[in-house]
Amino acid sequence: MHLEGLTLSFAVCILYQRQELFRTRTHLKSKIITQGRNGTVEPRFASRMGILRASDIREILKVTQNPEIISFAGGLPAPELFPASAIAERAAEVLASQGTVALQYSPTEGFFALRQIIAERMNTIWHTQLMPEEILVTTGSQQGLDLTGKLFLDEGDVVLCESPTYLGAIMAFNVFKPHWVEVATDDEGMEPEALEDALRTHERIKLIYTVPNFQNPTGRTWSDQRRERLVQLAAKYEVPVIEDNPYGEVCFEGTLPRAIQAMDSRGLVICLGTFSKIFCPGLRLGWVAANRRYLDKYVILKQAGDLHTSTVDQMIAASYMKTHDLENDIQHKRDVYRKRRDAMLSALEAEMPRGVSFTRPKGGLFLWVELPTSLDARQLLIRSLEQHVAFVPGEAFFPTSGRKNTLRLNYSNMPEARIIEGVRRLAVAVRKELEVGRPAQAPVSV
Amino acid sequence: MHLEGLTLSFAVCILYQRQELFRTRTHLKSKIITQGRNGTVEPRFASRMGILRASDIREILKVTQNPEIISFAGGLPAPELFPASAIAERAAEVLASQGTVALQYSPTEGFFALRQIIAERMNTIWHTQLMPEEILVTTGSQQGLDLTGKLFLDEGDVVLCESPTYLGAIMAFNVFKPHWVEVATDDEGMEPEALEDALRTHERIKLIYTVPNFQNPTGRTWSDQRRERLVQLAAKYEVPVIEDNPYGEVCFEGTLPRAIQAMDSRGLVICLGTFSKIFCPGLRLGWVAANRRYLDKYVILKQAGDLHTSTVDQMIAASYMKTHDLENDIQHKRDVYRKRRDAMLSALEAEMPRGVSFTRPKGGLFLWVELPTSLDARQLLIRSLEQHVAFVPGEAFFPTSGRKNTLRLNYSNMPEARIIEGVRRLAVAVRKELEVGRPAQAPVSV
Repeated sequence: MHLEGLTLSFAVCILYQRQELFRTRTHLKSKIITQGRNGTVEPRFASRMGILRASDIREILKVTQNPEIISFAGGLPAPELFPASAIAERAAEVLASQGTVALQYSPTEGFFALRQIIAERMNTIWHTQLMPEEILVTTGSQQGLDLTGKLFLDEGDVVLCESPTYLGAIMAFNVFKPHWVEVATDDEGMEPEALEDALRTHERIKLIYTVPNFQNPTGRTWSDQRRERLVQLAAKYEVPVIEDNPYGEVCFEGTLPRAIQAMDSRGLVICLGTFSKIFCPGLRLGWVAANRRYLDKYVILKQAGDLHTSTVDQMIAASYMKTHDLENDIQHKRDVYRKRRDAMLSALEAEMPRGVSFTRPKGGLFLWVELPTSLDARQLLIRSLEQHVAFVPGEAFFPTSGRKNTLRLNYSNMPEARIIEGVRRLAVAVRKELEVGRPAQAPVSV
Repeated sequence: MHLEGLTLSFAVCILYQRQELFRTRTHLKSKIITQGRNGTVEPRFASRMGILRASDIREILKVTQNPEIISFAGGLPAPELFPASAIAERAAEVLASQGTVALQYSPTEGFFALRQIIAERMNTIWHTQLMPEEILVTTGSQQGLDLTGKLFLDEGDVVLCESPTYLGAIMAFNVFKPHWVEVATDDEGMEPEALEDALRTHERIKLIYTVPNFQNPTGRTWSDQRRERLVQLAAKYEVPVIEDNPYGEVCFEGTLPRAIQAMDSRGLVICLGTFSKIFCPGLRLGWVAANRRYLDKYVILKQAGDLHTSTVDQMIAASYMKTHDLENDIQHKRDVYRKRRDAMLSALEAEMPRGVSFTRPKGGLFLWVELPTSLDARQLLIRSLEQHVAFVPGEAFFPTSGRKNTLRLNYSNMPEARIIEGVRRLAVAVRKELEVGRPAQAPVSV
């Protein structure tokens, strides 16, 4: 927001400089006290602050508040699909009939009627067998990640994840200083041999973290076979699985994927859910669905973290779901997002030069682009912003192995014509980068 | 909630047993893997889970959902004072005019108009000199505590606090495994000699945590001299001060206390605020007010923790404060709570046996009772629940020194007649405990 008014290329330079600056500062802060030149003392932060920095995405989003920019960088649902007037009606009803409850403190676990609705929906849609008492309402599923980190991770504990993985999980878990192990991942999910190899060779493995459906950032979905193998391996090695499932219901083709939690008879799979993609994100309503041996501990940590999630938002959501057909809303979102995905795929096919490949997600909000290995997506972003197009360089989604020739595109947040124009401009930027990056003619030997 | 239907005394037994059980389990869990008798494996949680348990208050609140119980245990504002219909109007207006914004993701820092309102209110009321950019909106001030722990505390780092101190801060900081040092505290605040002694003798002091106004749990308020001394000492030893101020505006007598942040020229004082006591808690709206060298880091941690606070709740609150006179609402709350405090004080004076002393808070929601040292407030609670009266034993408010003969009473949440009846019953329980506890007649020597 404070970047407004700067030219775009300058803004991007600042982004880079800030990151460098941060690394330098972090180094300084690792000493106990650092006396500055003007006599002020550098704050002594916790050691975790050395590895945390502002999300690339958030920083890029600030640049892209310029309405001239076609931004594929965010992950925003289409706001024109929010049922604002129906929510206003529900707010009025809840506040009129139960205002003293809706505006008061409420149980940490969540508003019971909403926990019931969540359990019933999951059991219907995902074939789980959850009781309402196995649901904790969270302040968005991002809080589910924070609580997961708190519950399981001591410094140096190992988290196995897909490669690449969700940036918000990297940020949330890094607060607890884990050791990340990226498991080789292809279009069907983690490769089982690589997963078992990791489980066998690493000590202190606390979690297997996965976004199995229409993953952020790649749009990939796990095959059933891989899911079953994951559950077997988790049971064999007694490692809890975090099934982070924000996009599963945003499915464009065929039947829904199978829930990993529903395959698990050992209670080892902890599911994180959210209303952000199927209802609206501004209410910050997510949930943890887990066996009580886990859930009761999540509740203690939630209580220490923010006491409880907004009572009124929970009651509005519960009231909406009792009086409206959420499944119908979701079907509408699927139709809209499918068209936008199709527009993006067609444009990529038509515009991108050879050597650029991309995923073809069957749901969700994102697809993933691989550039020729000679290109760096951060450099491409600078050129792309000159064309007034933004995206997120893929490097940030790899907790350890940062692959520079990748990028994430979001297609949920704008009409098809704008998507097509944005991809056209992005392709111009890619071609320009390819030209610059072309190796100079070999010098004549002398 | 799941305790409903049990007799009260049984419920309390369960409370005790559960805590014992928890300690035992925790011990077991500290080993890497514990094979249970039925072949299941105990989950391997992070080591921090060994010191965390559900808040006494939350557990007691569950018992006290029985409407026959007169509960002084919670800390709930009076719900009849919530402006429910005006909030409903604001919700309708916000959703009608800006629904697509109100229901969408929004900046981590908070809705800018609300940050402006918070900065302006603080500058007017507390004579601070804050910019909106120095305000982070949080999911209640409990989240401010969680973020503070994340920002400053490595395992073993020292937190200086009042004795007793706020239970929610103990819970939030314990996630990060600090070493607590209780500083001797009297009716004017921390004793300056004890504070300086602690600052001089302990290494790795990261924070001085204080609730200077109408403290939870004691109702005590720091004198101006002590505040000034605190700021001097914080500057001398370069230690940040957390000024946790949820109750400051709920002031019954005279002028408001002086804000510690306003006395600080070094930017070392970080203020945590909340709308829970002056507006309504169900919206979960709090804030951190701090110098940018701290605030920017809080923002990174907030982003990792829950992305942002409910957009619609922030916009409703901002809209309410632009169209209604919040100061008038607060004045009304002061009048109501003052009468309730007066009723409780009069009843305590009239009913309590000799040897029972209590604080006389000039604001806030709580007062603090000291029983004769022969009594244990946990035993008293069992007897008191037989009289259908609940309170919180004081032991939990001391992070290290647990004084068993203390308890906290809340007076904000019920009419005077019920307060008077509750205190009468509590006094009956105290007298019975005193009789039981009376030492048996010395045996005749033989």
